[in-house]
Amino acid sequence: MVKKACAQANYKLGLLDMTKKDPFDTEHGDNKGTEMRENFLVDMIQGGAGTSTNMNANEVIANRALEILGKERGQYEFCSPNDDVNKGQSTNDSYPTSAKVACILMHSELLTAIKNLSTAFFDKAREFSDVVKMGRTQLQDAVPMTLGQEFHAYGNSVASDIEALSSAVNRFCTSNLGGTAIGTGIAADPHFSQIAVQELRTVTGFPMILADDLIEASSSVGDMIYVSGMLRRIAAKVSKICNDLRLLSSGPRCGLAEINLPPKAPGSSIMPGKVNPVIPEVMNMCAFEAIGNDITVVFGAEAGQLELNVMEPVIIYKLFSTLRVLARGINTLRSHCIEGITANKEHCKEMVYNSVGVVTALLPHIGYKKCTEAAAMAVKDKRPVADIIVELGFLNREEVEKLLQPESMCGPTAKKCRTH
Amino acid sequence: MVKKACAQANYKLGLLDMTKKDPFDTEHGDNKGTEMRENFLVDMIQGGAGTSTNMNANEVIANRALEILGKERGQYEFCSPNDDVNKGQSTNDSYPTSAKVACILMHSELLTAIKNLSTAFFDKAREFSDVVKMGRTQLQDAVPMTLGQEFHAYGNSVASDIEALSSAVNRFCTSNLGGTAIGTGIAADPHFSQIAVQELRTVTGFPMILADDLIEASSSVGDMIYVSGMLRRIAAKVSKICNDLRLLSSGPRCGLAEINLPPKAPGSSIMPGKVNPVIPEVMNMCAFEAIGNDITVVFGAEAGQLELNVMEPVIIYKLFSTLRVLARGINTLRSHCIEGITANKEHCKEMVYNSVGVVTALLPHIGYKKCTEAAAMAVKDKRPVADIIVELGFLNREEVEKLLQPESMCGPTAKKCRTH
Amino acid sequence: MVKKACAQANYKLGLLDMTKKDPFDTEHGDNKGTEMRENFLVDMIQGGAGTSTNMNANEVIANRALEILGKERGQYEFCSPNDDVNKGQSTNDSYPTSAKVACILMHSELLTAIKNLSTAFFDKAREFSDVVKMGRTQLQDAVPMTLGQEFHAYGNSVASDIEALSSAVNRFCTSNLGGTAIGTGIAADPHFSQIAVQELRTVTGFPMILADDLIEASSSVGDMIYVSGMLRRIAAKVSKICNDLRLLSSGPRCGLAEINLPPKAPGSSIMPGKVNPVIPEVMNMCAFEAIGNDITVVFGAEAGQLELNVMEPVIIYKLFSTLRVLARGINTLRSHCIEGITANKEHCKEMVYNSVGVVTALLPHIGYKKCTEAAAMAVKDKRPVADIIVELGFLNREEVEKLLQPESMCGPTAKKCRTH
Amino acid sequence: MVKKACAQANYKLGLLDMTKKDPFDTEHGDNKGTEMRENFLVDMIQGGAGTSTNMNANEVIANRALEILGKERGQYEFCSPNDDVNKGQSTNDSYPTSAKVACILMHSELLTAIKNLSTAFFDKAREFSDVVKMGRTQLQDAVPMTLGQEFHAYGNSVASDIEALSSAVNRFCTSNLGGTAIGTGIAADPHFSQIAVQELRTVTGFPMILADDLIEASSSVGDMIYVSGMLRRIAAKVSKICNDLRLLSSGPRCGLAEINLPPKAPGSSIMPGKVNPVIPEVMNMCAFEAIGNDITVVFGAEAGQLELNVMEPVIIYKLFSTLRVLARGINTLRSHCIEGITANKEHCKEMVYNSVGVVTALLPHIGYKKCTEAAAMAVKDKRPVADIIVELGFLNREEVEKLLQPESMCGPTAKKCRTH
Repeated sequence: MVKKACAQANYKLGLLDMTKKDPFDTEHGDNKGTEMRENFLVDMIQGGAGTSTNMNANEVIANRALEILGKERGQYEFCSPNDDVNKGQSTNDSYPTSAKVACILMHSELLTAIKNLSTAFFDKAREFSDVVKMGRTQLQDAVPMTLGQEFHAYGNSVASDIEALSSAVNRFCTSNLGGTAIGTGIAADPHFSQIAVQELRTVTGFPMILADDLIEASSSVGDMIYVSGMLRRIAAKVSKICNDLRLLSSGPRCGLAEINLPPKAPGSSIMPGKVNPVIPEVMNMCAFEAIGNDITVVFGAEAGQLELNVMEPVIIYKLFSTLRVLARGINTLRSHCIEGITANKEHCKEMVYNSVGVVTALLPHIGYKKCTEAAAMAVKDKRPVADIIVELGFLNREEVEKLLQPESMCGPTAKKCRTH
Repeated sequence: MVKKACAQANYKLGLLDMTKKDPFDTEHGDNKGTEMRENFLVDMIQGGAGTSTNMNANEVIANRALEILGKERGQYEFCSPNDDVNKGQSTNDSYPTSAKVACILMHSELLTAIKNLSTAFFDKAREFSDVVKMGRTQLQDAVPMTLGQEFHAYGNSVASDIEALSSAVNRFCTSNLGGTAIGTGIAADPHFSQIAVQELRTVTGFPMILADDLIEASSSVGDMIYVSGMLRRIAAKVSKICNDLRLLSSGPRCGLAEINLPPKAPGSSIMPGKVNPVIPEVMNMCAFEAIGNDITVVFGAEAGQLELNVMEPVIIYKLFSTLRVLARGINTLRSHCIEGITANKEHCKEMVYNSVGVVTALLPHIGYKKCTEAAAMAVKDKRPVADIIVELGFLNREEVEKLLQPESMCGPTAKKCRTH
Repeated sequence: MVKKACAQANYKLGLLDMTKKDPFDTEHGDNKGTEMRENFLVDMIQGGAGTSTNMNANEVIANRALEILGKERGQYEFCSPNDDVNKGQSTNDSYPTSAKVACILMHSELLTAIKNLSTAFFDKAREFSDVVKMGRTQLQDAVPMTLGQEFHAYGNSVASDIEALSSAVNRFCTSNLGGTAIGTGIAADPHFSQIAVQELRTVTGFPMILADDLIEASSSVGDMIYVSGMLRRIAAKVSKICNDLRLLSSGPRCGLAEINLPPKAPGSSIMPGKVNPVIPEVMNMCAFEAIGNDITVVFGAEAGQLELNVMEPVIIYKLFSTLRVLARGINTLRSHCIEGITANKEHCKEMVYNSVGVVTALLPHIGYKKCTEAAAMAVKDKRPVADIIVELGFLNREEVEKLLQPESMCGPTAKKCRTH
Repeated sequence: MVKKACAQANYKLGLLDMTKKDPFDTEHGDNKGTEMRENFLVDMIQGGAGTSTNMNANEVIANRALEILGKERGQYEFCSPNDDVNKGQSTNDSYPTSAKVACILMHSELLTAIKNLSTAFFDKAREFSDVVKMGRTQLQDAVPMTLGQEFHAYGNSVASDIEALSSAVNRFCTSNLGGTAIGTGIAADPHFSQIAVQELRTVTGFPMILADDLIEASSSVGDMIYVSGMLRRIAAKVSKICNDLRLLSSGPRCGLAEINLPPKAPGSSIMPGKVNPVIPEVMNMCAFEAIGNDITVVFGAEAGQLELNVMEPVIIYKLFSTLRVLARGINTLRSHCIEGITANKEHCKEMVYNSVGVVTALLPHIGYKKCTEAAAMAVKDKRPVADIIVELGFLNREEVEKLLQPESMCGPTAKKCRTH
């Protein structure tokens, strides 16, 4: 797509004749794509800041053009990799531009995955809107909430990444095409930059614009570290949710056992009947990979020198890898886990009933000191806190029962997640 | 500020009488501030997700209120740390809200530092706009540019962080105040959240708003990892610039020696007369600290469980630390280094004249193959490339000289940075 | 200590006369230490690879010597910071040597902390050797074990760091003293290196030796990254144990509730009676800080250039910080948490009895397929697996009961931890 | 290899009859290996702590055994994946044991690569033993050395990893085989562990031993984080050397230009004749990948819970990846770069002659103050420092020339690297 846009720009500038331009029009979408891919032999990790990949592309495209023109491969006098396909460009502008276009293309899958995951959580939130359970802070019993509220929060946590990711990746629409070697535009027509980016806008359908300062744009990978930071944020957040799912489904008999994840694989080669939370575990590991990739990106970004960041290949490699691993992990998480989660409603309710934490609901009515006294006695005697409150004469039975209705303790948002 | 806003809200809701509310009005801005600070005894790194700090604050404020009311310290029946100062709140809403307000306050210094650094680079860009020098990619001679263009790019690189940082920190204006323990608002008046945040808006002057989903807001540190990601991006970018400054000033006789950093300290305890780039080095180290801090934040963020992230104290600690170390480092960099940089104009020019890389300017005129031939010969024979081009008959002397005027090779932006 | 050793060496070489050497003999251990410390004004993070700190030390020591000699401060003709105190040295040898000696000194506290923590776990292992409980893998009920075995494993996990840490820090006994500026020994007597290190051995009592290749030793921080790697390993391992302690003590009613951590602070400003695992949480955060510090060290290590690693100050700063934070965290963990842990023996036993996982003990007797069938039925019908095994005729009651004796299921090591 | 050792152990214990054991004897080394590999369908990143991979292996091996026994695939009554191939084992012992054996096997390639790289540096050190050049600290001219000394230091830096890596990987010889599910040995014969590990010693030829505490060994990945830490240390150190090589070869005309790297690829798609340091760049990127992988390992290690670390698959995946990428990178670095490096001897010498830094050699003779004075004047007047020393009457010409003989300034080790 980048090479096509450049060819169009050079043609418009009268620097490429129609014969050489035409093949580009047919190339895009032509079914030789897969076949051509086999001609890309260069490793993602390569020295030379992408020169090998750019050269490779120039040659493959030139030879494909020659084929279309009815010439032999290698008859570069009719279409030259350097002088025609790379005209007005350098690796240092066309390689990062291509990588950015690729990231924009790839991020759609992740964006869709995030959207769908968020929707799946909201769907479950509705389904679980009347499952009252203990909320926990620091793994200690806190106060009641509904499982619906909990899943609704997961939905919102994930949903907040939609805009964050989009706006981050949007930065990749800024291109330094035509800056050539170091951003001064040497060896390119002075109008090439503007026209090439305009053509790229047409070819890609993305709102591509030209960077303000081509020299800065050539040497900086600021946008890449920006996007990488956003990706590892998504990773950390989804990983946290997976940790929760594994906690909530712990058991079946000696754990929290509030929810059941759909069984996916024999859980053990030796413990018959064991079912493991394999899908959240996979997602955790994908997240850890993404976080590690991000550190590689930071190292690469910091290592840029003077007019170029020569570590771009490893930065791009890791961005691609993270975009892919997160999209796959999140899709797997949704379809193989979230959508099939069921709740153990009775068990959840029972735990709330037996808990001490409900005493918090009485705080505005009897104060911190009396609450603490009742709570301590409830723990010591292993008895319901409500009984003790009444016994100590802090409130009468009727008052206590009214205040300790779980539904009322869950707050106004409990209803909200039913209709989201 | 947070406690004051809450007191105002409780007063408006009729939950706190005027006697107890009034001390808050005097407290803020009262010159007891420093004295009170000595009563904060808790380490930044603390268990309990900030409970100790919140409790500490509640007690200090209650006792200060008691003093103002003419009571003895500890007469909590007149103003209670828990029932009055903490009314309608939990650590889990007031602690992160306070931390966010603190970050907004602290980030101003960093923002100003960045703005000033960017301006300092632009000033130098103007000053160096007629210093022609070799641009380098991969540390190899590339093509000419002006030192002005290089510094202008630094200015733009830094300037792009102004908006990025502001908009990141802006996320901290969203508060979960009144969500109490887990975001369900248990033990708080149903109207408390809205009013408290409104009051906080007044007290702070920041555009504070209430989070949409208080449960999500209580458990998620998504905004903190977002901001941390932005800070380590700034760190990596500024570190890269410092690496460049150290390269460009390497020498004095056996290095690039294009610029001189202002000498700041005897460079060596054993090598008399040695002057070292100590200021950029300090900034590099500040950046490395920031990047390490960020990893701590990511670990903390990922370790949240269920309805709370209990690692908030270390996350906040590292955010504070990074905000401070970057602001100080950047201010030092600007005032003790950038503003005093001078250029070795003649040496820069000489290097361009002797370089082979200028051959790129001839590319559109004689093609890649001939250029390569001339460049190879120039390297081999250690002679100027211009002579060889003429000798080989690729162009005549006049043509070569016109095309190789350094100024024209630097491209149109060379002028731009003179007037920015 | 380093400066003293150098003075002794110079004296032995006839390069420093007794007048100037003598003050060093009195200085060490003289009660001016604290006062002198106030004269060290330089930040840990400093440019110049420690030159400022070395110069600062040279001056403080010279002036202290002058005082002892009955001269005025600043009368450097009688004892010069550069020509006498720094004789035969450079920052590049004396600064890292000092830092290494400091780390050796500081690591003792951490080593003792680790040893004591390990002992505390072994003590608890003995105490809990007859508490039978469910082992869990992937948070799912696995097979029975004793709480003693679990704590014994924690003890061993920690104990394995004793040797690992010692042998890592032992690398710091290698010094490049006398290599001066870049390791060539310029401006130092050719015998200075050997003698100075020998003196340092005497002064410190550590088995200091001279590096084989002083040039390599001057530029490489390989030993520092080695030690840092060991420290973050300790951090990750202890953090994992703290995660476990928080899981095992989750509850009190809606969690695993197998153990009770000693209550240390009011757990909540709003939830009366809540007790939080604050101490393990603190340790987790200390560990996260250590892991972040380590990344700073890696960045610093990678950024060395040519004959010196100018990032040594930040590397050393972070090593010091990690040594301190881990030692304190681990001591706190042991004394405020581990030593006071109690077990809920009955609850643990009950969970084992109700579990399905015990079926694994029957595997060698009835095979994987039959076990799976029985386990599935037990889960579905919520009944004890033993009953189902008998009912399905796989084994008779007597056989089942013998095989499912928890004690026998825990394996031979269950006894071992009683007597460790 | 692990499954074979277990089969032998079970056979010796009378738990597996000869019919079922025999196929294992033929399997190993039988040329069905590659074909069998196609039957391993599971991703490296998988939930279940490796259960899928272990199950996969059990099934592939069982079916291969059935083939050898002349049975149909799937006739598990003759050889069962669970009851025979997996006998006495669990994923939780056989999977990590296999991974460790694999790492031991894989690390040989890296070890050889390191040894050869070190040798290549020593060879070059000999070759460059008479190339006198300026040593640089903080990128500033310091004092003279030989290029031989510099490369000798690289050789030693790399060589120190040989022992460090070996002894780290040696930890993988400790196995938890027979610990089964959680290390209690449930469902395994009490003698199985010892015998199985003994057999594994025979099958692998490695000095395998049984872990002391099988419970600790099952849950801890301490050895893996240990090895990972060593690998990222190698990465950081080699990356530093590559940074140096890129600096030293910068130019050809506007850089340090002390050495020439063998040209490997057209350096630019637009700058004809440009030769880039592509091979060190590749190695830098491999190192950054290794460092990122290590962070993933740390995250995985910290995330273990209770009796198992379920993140083992991603930890192992990243260990494999780093072992491979470092081995390949280092081999490429040696064969495509180091071995072909040449020195620009004259240019190096000239720079020393013109430098100011040589004044350090006069320090013991005229003191710090006079040296500083002469150095400052030399810089200001752009004249040789020797002339100024004589002019100022600090030393006479003869004395100066004797002291400033570059060879003598390089110290005694200059000779050493000639004969290493």
